[in-house]
Amino acid sequence: MQIVRGRDATAPAVKRMAADYVTGVSWADPVLSGPDGTAIGHVFFEPGSRTFWHTHRNGQILQVTSGRGIVRSRDGSGGVIAVGDTVLIPAGEEHWHGAAPDSYLVHISITREAPDWLEEVSEDDYARD
Amino acid sequence: MQIVRGRDATAPAVKRMAADYVTGVSWADPVLSGPDGTAIGHVFFEPGSRTFWHTHRNGQILQVTSGRGIVRSRDGSGGVIAVGDTVLIPAGEEHWHGAAPDSYLVHISITREAPDWLEEVSEDDYARD
Repeated sequence: MQIVRGRDATAPAVKRMAADYVTGVSWADPVLSGPDGTAIGHVFFEPGSRTFWHTHRNGQILQVTSGRGIVRSRDGSGGVIAVGDTVLIPAGEEHWHGAAPDSYLVHISITREAPDWLEEVSEDDYARD
Repeated sequence: MQIVRGRDATAPAVKRMAADYVTGVSWADPVLSGPDGTAIGHVFFEPGSRTFWHTHRNGQILQVTSGRGIVRSRDGSGGVIAVGDTVLIPAGEEHWHGAAPDSYLVHISITREAPDWLEEVSEDDYARD
C-alpha cells in the first residue's frame, strides 16, 4: 500500500492551476496517484475563481473541507456547496466547480483519470442561481 | 449530480459496524453511493477496534480526518496513520484498518464496491510493529 503523510514537509509543492482551465487563482495539492489512475488531491479556489467546464470519464467525487463554493452542471443542477458537503458528478457529465464570490473553497477531489477540459465558464453562467 | 449535505439532520442514522467484520465498536456514516458503485463514507473506530481482514476488488482510499490508527497488509506494509494522512490500498490487497490502542480513528473511505471479508485480525497481528 501507499501512505502519504498529511504533514510531511517533503511533500511536493502545491501547484497553481493553469489559466488554460481555471479562471482566477487556484492551487492544487496532488496528494496521491494510484497505479490504476485513482487520484486524490486537495484544491483551493480564491473567491470568484473556478474551473473551466470539464468532464471526467469515470466521474468525480468532491468532499468540501473548508469554505463555500458552487458546483454546476449544464442542466443547471448543482448549487452552493459548503464545508462538510459531498458531491458526486457522474461519468461524462459536463460541469464546473469553484469558490463563491465571497468565500474561498477547499475540497478533496477523487477521480480515476485526468479531466477533459472544455471552454471557460462565463460570468453569466457563474452568476446564475 | 448528487449533493449530500454534511450537516443535514435528515441524513440516515449512522450504523454500528457488524461483529461479523469488525472487532470492537465502530460506527459507519454512509454518505453517498453512486450509480456505478462508487461510495464515500465516514467511519469511526473506538480505541482498539479494527476491521477484519478484507479486500476491495478495485482498491480503497482512506483519508484520515481525526485521531490516529493503524493500517496493515499481509506483507507487513502499512503502519500508524494519523489525521491528514492518505492511504491507497491497491485492488485485491488483503489488509485491515482501525484505531490505535490509545486513540480513536475517523477516516473517509472511498471504494467502488463492497468489501470481500476474511477472518478476524488476531491480537498478535494487531499488536505487531
